[in-house]
Amino acid sequence: MSVDPSPQLHPDVAVLAPLLGTWEGSGTGEYPTIDDFAYAESITFSHVGKPFIAYTQRTKHPDTSAPMHAETGYLRVPRPGSIEIVMAQPTGIAEVYEGAVIGGDAPLVIDVRSISIGSTTSAKEVTITERTISVTGNDLHYTFRMAAVGQPLQHHLSATLRRV
Amino acid sequence: MSVDPSPQLHPDVAVLAPLLGTWEGSGTGEYPTIDDFAYAESITFSHVGKPFIAYTQRTKHPDTSAPMHAETGYLRVPRPGSIEIVMAQPTGIAEVYEGAVIGGDAPLVIDVRSISIGSTTSAKEVTITERTISVTGNDLHYTFRMAAVGQPLQHHLSATLRRV
Repeated sequence: MSVDPSPQLHPDVAVLAPLLGTWEGSGTGEYPTIDDFAYAESITFSHVGKPFIAYTQRTKHPDTSAPMHAETGYLRVPRPGSIEIVMAQPTGIAEVYEGAVIGGDAPLVIDVRSISIGSTTSAKEVTITERTISVTGNDLHYTFRMAAVGQPLQHHLSATLRRV
Repeated sequence: MSVDPSPQLHPDVAVLAPLLGTWEGSGTGEYPTIDDFAYAESITFSHVGKPFIAYTQRTKHPDTSAPMHAETGYLRVPRPGSIEIVMAQPTGIAEVYEGAVIGGDAPLVIDVRSISIGSTTSAKEVTITERTISVTGNDLHYTFRMAAVGQPLQHHLSATLRRV
């Protein structure tokens, strides 16, 4: 009698199955208050059989490999078509996102907007964040829009990663 | 010429050095709205040389090893004696904590209280959380207090882990 060590994906998050695995690629960032920048990125989505997907991400400088950003959190699908994401950032930000997920036979598309952003006293002011994540086969693309430090909501990050 | 792959701990978080590593142990939980329970726990604190410590945690059923809780986040020390923690939970909660840290030659003690708790629409209501974490050598102990689902702030979790 054998025991399968990898648990079955919980049916509530079955629509998110295309995310599972580790992704590597690169992205670019821009914002009115900073210089444009580029980064190398690694993302992992994993699960333990419970009704959520764990997310962890790290970026590095594309030339020096110095660590840049990181973030970590969880994705939930409270009902078909809806998605909730909670995320912590080492800059002292804790975000709650809600939005839509489209999947099934179509490419996976997640489109969310912050419903609350918690900040530590020392964190920079971030008021609205939006993320769009799409997966087609082994390609993942995302964009990130942000209203922060007095600037209106606008494009900040765009990256393309490949499943490794 | 050799390159050290493990970066130096950032001086801002030097006081948190006793946390670094992986810890395993067990805990117990209680709350007026649920049955008492026990759990096995694994915690990892890590760093990449930047001014934060990454935290990730998982608990399992002590008998069946079925996954129970998980959480993940970051710790910052904005100024000596102060600590900020941001944390995401797969239950749809994103917490921001602030409080005090005592360390140096003494055992490390972290004592924090939530300053904001973000929730997804499907999450249970959690209004206040408090954590106390202490490290003496290879022993880590924490307690967790919570006001949730209409109950006043009270003890919820207690666990003791050993560095592995």
